[in-house]
Amino acid sequence: MELMPYLGSVAKTTDAYLIRTFGSASDNLYRASAHLLVAGGKRLRPAVAMLAADAVAPGRSQDIFPAAVALELTHTFTLIHDDIMDGDSLRRGAPTVHKKWDEPTAILAGDVLYARAFEHICLAKATEKAKVRAVGMLATACIEICEGQHTDMSFENRSDVSEEEYLSMVGKKTGALYAASAGIGGLLAGGSEEQVEALYRYGMKTGIAFQIQDDLIDLMASPEKSGKDRASDLREGKQTLIMIRAKAAGLDLSEYRKELTDTEIDEAIAKLEKANIIEGVRQTAFSLVETGKRDLAVLPDSEERRLLGEISEYFVTRGH
Amino acid sequence: MELMPYLGSVAKTTDAYLIRTFGSASDNLYRASAHLLVAGGKRLRPAVAMLAADAVAPGRSQDIFPAAVALELTHTFTLIHDDIMDGDSLRRGAPTVHKKWDEPTAILAGDVLYARAFEHICLAKATEKAKVRAVGMLATACIEICEGQHTDMSFENRSDVSEEEYLSMVGKKTGALYAASAGIGGLLAGGSEEQVEALYRYGMKTGIAFQIQDDLIDLMASPEKSGKDRASDLREGKQTLIMIRAKAAGLDLSEYRKELTDTEIDEAIAKLEKANIIEGVRQTAFSLVETGKRDLAVLPDSEERRLLGEISEYFVTRGH
Repeated sequence: MELMPYLGSVAKTTDAYLIRTFGSASDNLYRASAHLLVAGGKRLRPAVAMLAADAVAPGRSQDIFPAAVALELTHTFTLIHDDIMDGDSLRRGAPTVHKKWDEPTAILAGDVLYARAFEHICLAKATEKAKVRAVGMLATACIEICEGQHTDMSFENRSDVSEEEYLSMVGKKTGALYAASAGIGGLLAGGSEEQVEALYRYGMKTGIAFQIQDDLIDLMASPEKSGKDRASDLREGKQTLIMIRAKAAGLDLSEYRKELTDTEIDEAIAKLEKANIIEGVRQTAFSLVETGKRDLAVLPDSEERRLLGEISEYFVTRGH
Repeated sequence: MELMPYLGSVAKTTDAYLIRTFGSASDNLYRASAHLLVAGGKRLRPAVAMLAADAVAPGRSQDIFPAAVALELTHTFTLIHDDIMDGDSLRRGAPTVHKKWDEPTAILAGDVLYARAFEHICLAKATEKAKVRAVGMLATACIEICEGQHTDMSFENRSDVSEEEYLSMVGKKTGALYAASAGIGGLLAGGSEEQVEALYRYGMKTGIAFQIQDDLIDLMASPEKSGKDRASDLREGKQTLIMIRAKAAGLDLSEYRKELTDTEIDEAIAKLEKANIIEGVRQTAFSLVETGKRDLAVLPDSEERRLLGEISEYFVTRGH
């Protein structure tokens, strides 16, 4: 099977489930919980979980589908809370939950999805032992996401963030949930310890690569494509791998820490390209994907293992 | 054993565990998570969980101790988030987390404890099956707590809340976690379906009674005892059972919706006492405790069953 039709089919199934389960609420709190959840999205974490399940035990992805949904619920809960913390008013081209409702409702809407995520792990068809371990794995991922978000916010007051610190932060903020997606999928489908650990490492590395690509998209893509304001990281002086390497190369981008015209953004990009920063950052993401794919070697050869490789290549080639 | 020494010993054990596990953090996020957690508290939910465990299977409370801690972690997470939503600056006589740090840190500090709660359920010594059910029970309680808090906030814009609506809100906001405490304790200790359900009902009813007593304490107790501002519900025109019954009795307390002197508070209390409202509300709490205690009849006669009865009497007789 081709990757894009596969992703399309997972997104369709996931959307249908989410709309059926969360989409018809009339109560304000439940409408707020559902707002972002049913607004689409690529459903990449469910896809990774389901591919991981089929890669260790062909045909098991259907059984673990509720756990795949749990990963999307977790992702959405973190987005709702992050948007409050970051004061963002737009997400996927629509108003964020705390803007459309209010902050208390957004805090609670996130908290509801948080509980629903753990509930959905337990709804999977798997051994009780695997479910208990999956709950633990999800809890660990949630803690790391919080740590990552907290560290990311603390970077705002610093100009000396190292590449190592950035990668550690991103590993928690984004890598941990992809690691848990692959790990939980394999675990619930009955994968061996070795397979589950390999899937976890694959998810961690490719998840970091995913975030690096997100930073590149923020800088390079048009707002119509990304659904966000263009070059917001540059305007806010955010410490991304791009900015950290620019600084290390002696490139001063502090003049761009203000409202920017498209011409100014293009000018900054040209400087970064000339100094080989963009290409270097892209290479780092590619090589994380390559080493992540090598972790999959412990899995039996299968269509799904191949698709896990392809999805991670998509992480670093996508334009939005 | 007497109740007070028993509660003292649970609090001591719980405090020691929490301080050991959460108390020595140097990182800001972890200090914020630990702030309220290690600041004391009566640890009533852990006590209920441990008594329920011993009441169905003598000596099992030690095995389920991590789950007892999970209930305190859940309670603390909801307090941290509630304080943000309610804009409260004092809790247990100390600054609230979002005041001592900031809102983003408080949101994350709560989110960390939330994950830690689910992690701690899994750390209990119990069958895998019981743990999976306990995770589901905790998730359900968390969802109900969010619903209850949301409904409670929506009451602020209404003056026509019925007694039934109030009791339903309180059942979710406070009853659900006591129900889960008793239910999870019994479940993890290997209680039968009938026993677990009875414990759940006991926890729900006595938890509602607990909240009614909280409302009475808010009105009657001195701030030194309660650690909160006196009569805050009266000043804010909050819809408690007291206020709802006062309104039904034709007693207009709207003049007290402002900053109040002690004399004015005493005057309002005198009016409520004269109209028999205070006594009636107290009776409602007492009778919830009585019916809750009757649910315990399915458990074998034991010291711990008796203490579960006594702890619920304490819920409605305590002065702070």
